[in-house]
Amino acid sequence: MQPAAFEAHLAKVADAVEAALSALLGDAPAPGETARPDRLLAAMRHAALGGGKRLRPALTLAVAELFGADGEGALRAGLALECVHAYSLVHDDLPSMDDDDLRRGRPTVHRAFDDATAILAGDALQSLAFDILSDPRTHPDGAVRAELVLTLARAAGLGGMVGGQMFDLAAEGRFADGRPLALAETEILKLQAMKTGALIEAAATMGAILGGAGAEARAAISTYARAVGAAFQVADDLLDAEGESAAVGKATGKDAAAGKATLVGLLGVAGARARLDRLTADALEAVAPFGARADLLRAAAGFVAVRKS
Amino acid sequence: MQPAAFEAHLAKVADAVEAALSALLGDAPAPGETARPDRLLAAMRHAALGGGKRLRPALTLAVAELFGADGEGALRAGLALECVHAYSLVHDDLPSMDDDDLRRGRPTVHRAFDDATAILAGDALQSLAFDILSDPRTHPDGAVRAELVLTLARAAGLGGMVGGQMFDLAAEGRFADGRPLALAETEILKLQAMKTGALIEAAATMGAILGGAGAEARAAISTYARAVGAAFQVADDLLDAEGESAAVGKATGKDAAAGKATLVGLLGVAGARARLDRLTADALEAVAPFGARADLLRAAAGFVAVRKS
Repeated sequence: MQPAAFEAHLAKVADAVEAALSALLGDAPAPGETARPDRLLAAMRHAALGGGKRLRPALTLAVAELFGADGEGALRAGLALECVHAYSLVHDDLPSMDDDDLRRGRPTVHRAFDDATAILAGDALQSLAFDILSDPRTHPDGAVRAELVLTLARAAGLGGMVGGQMFDLAAEGRFADGRPLALAETEILKLQAMKTGALIEAAATMGAILGGAGAEARAAISTYARAVGAAFQVADDLLDAEGESAAVGKATGKDAAAGKATLVGLLGVAGARARLDRLTADALEAVAPFGARADLLRAAAGFVAVRKS
Repeated sequence: MQPAAFEAHLAKVADAVEAALSALLGDAPAPGETARPDRLLAAMRHAALGGGKRLRPALTLAVAELFGADGEGALRAGLALECVHAYSLVHDDLPSMDDDDLRRGRPTVHRAFDDATAILAGDALQSLAFDILSDPRTHPDGAVRAELVLTLARAAGLGGMVGGQMFDLAAEGRFADGRPLALAETEILKLQAMKTGALIEAAATMGAILGGAGAEARAAISTYARAVGAAFQVADDLLDAEGESAAVGKATGKDAAAGKATLVGLLGVAGARARLDRLTADALEAVAPFGARADLLRAAAGFVAVRKS
């Protein structure tokens, strides 16, 4: 199966995610809620709707399908992942963090609204993620819902995504003398595994949880997802180093200008390309035991390696 | 039972919360985590340890005990509540929100560290709350864990605590012409019910969930907790209007100076005192059917009405 097959899957998932998130972010309070402030809701919609590749929900759905799980539950798990992903972008864009004005060609939330609203919108998106997962509509078995929550909470927290952003700020020299740290390869890999890898691995793991996969199958899916997550990051660094700004949709060459420690900086473009190939091979090897049932996951690994934006 | 009985319970709970949170915020990564950055962990410890009345865990434990639930699970639910409460204080104190330098006589997190670290510490504390609740150590039944998560997520999110903070910023005139809004009584009550009431109600509800309380008993506990939460807020406003700064531990008279819409401003001190008495009576009436088993909850309602800080 070619990467294009995964692109078709992505497009279908993106439509479903957009519609479902828009419905969740309506103005009628849910049971247990009092009222939803208009401005907060508008900022949350600005953050969560209208774009993004929806790679994480696509992975959850692909893995869930491999194990024969219900699509509705996997879509809801994907919505939770997108809420966490969106909140992290809103907070990372703030002036006291990366200070970005644009995201996917639109003003960032704090530029479209204000800093306080952006902080609160991110906070509420994180709560919403766990609200979605723990709702009986996600899965009839409470133990499954609780395991989804635990998986996402660990991936998102201090030992995962948020911790990775913290390491990233430190690597940029934010807390020392202002000069970027010269990170060794193992440290760059750890930082990236936490900042972006943890949520990608959680996306695949949640599909396996929903599908009731056994320990061996889950280990294979984790190995696959760690390789895909690492490949995603190498591809991202290569796009930044080589891509044309218009195609990528954001400023390129930014990492080098910021003195950011990346694998491309450490291994060179050719070395990074070789690493990308090896990671893709690792991902394919991990899902080999699933045979044709893993075709969509193979296409996903290919897509991540060749994506242009 | 006198309010002093609840103060003794509070002191015991505070010690247990402090020890358990300190253990959770150790530097060894949990399963599913990669590594815990020192600076992030230090900021989270600064935020979550070393103080606070621990009123929410005390309520969870008191309600759980009323229904014969295991104390360990209730303590863990209380830790999750404190993580959410602590994260909300860290974010509310930020320069773009309330811009506070001190909290419980110590520098706020963004003053002791920096804004970016404070935002991330808050974010990671929120994740940790759901990590704690969904962990099998909290309750053997996954459906109970998932319901705890759902209860806290709804109380914390856009239709609860975060939404209440958003209404509060709007009421201070943050997004219009800079002049505070003249809120009607119903609007003040709604704002307070969301900003502080939702989490207090969740605290009591989580105790009832852990104790397997039936629908009628749960409704009574909710009624009790809503009254206690509202009373807590009126008492807070009275302390601000009347209290001496040294005893309260923070600047008093701040609400009036900020032109903040409070019940004391609307009803006067005597009117607010009468309201506090009525709310306390409502709380006591709600738990009357439980007889002597609810003595600790009665003492809690009394404590909230007479507290001096």
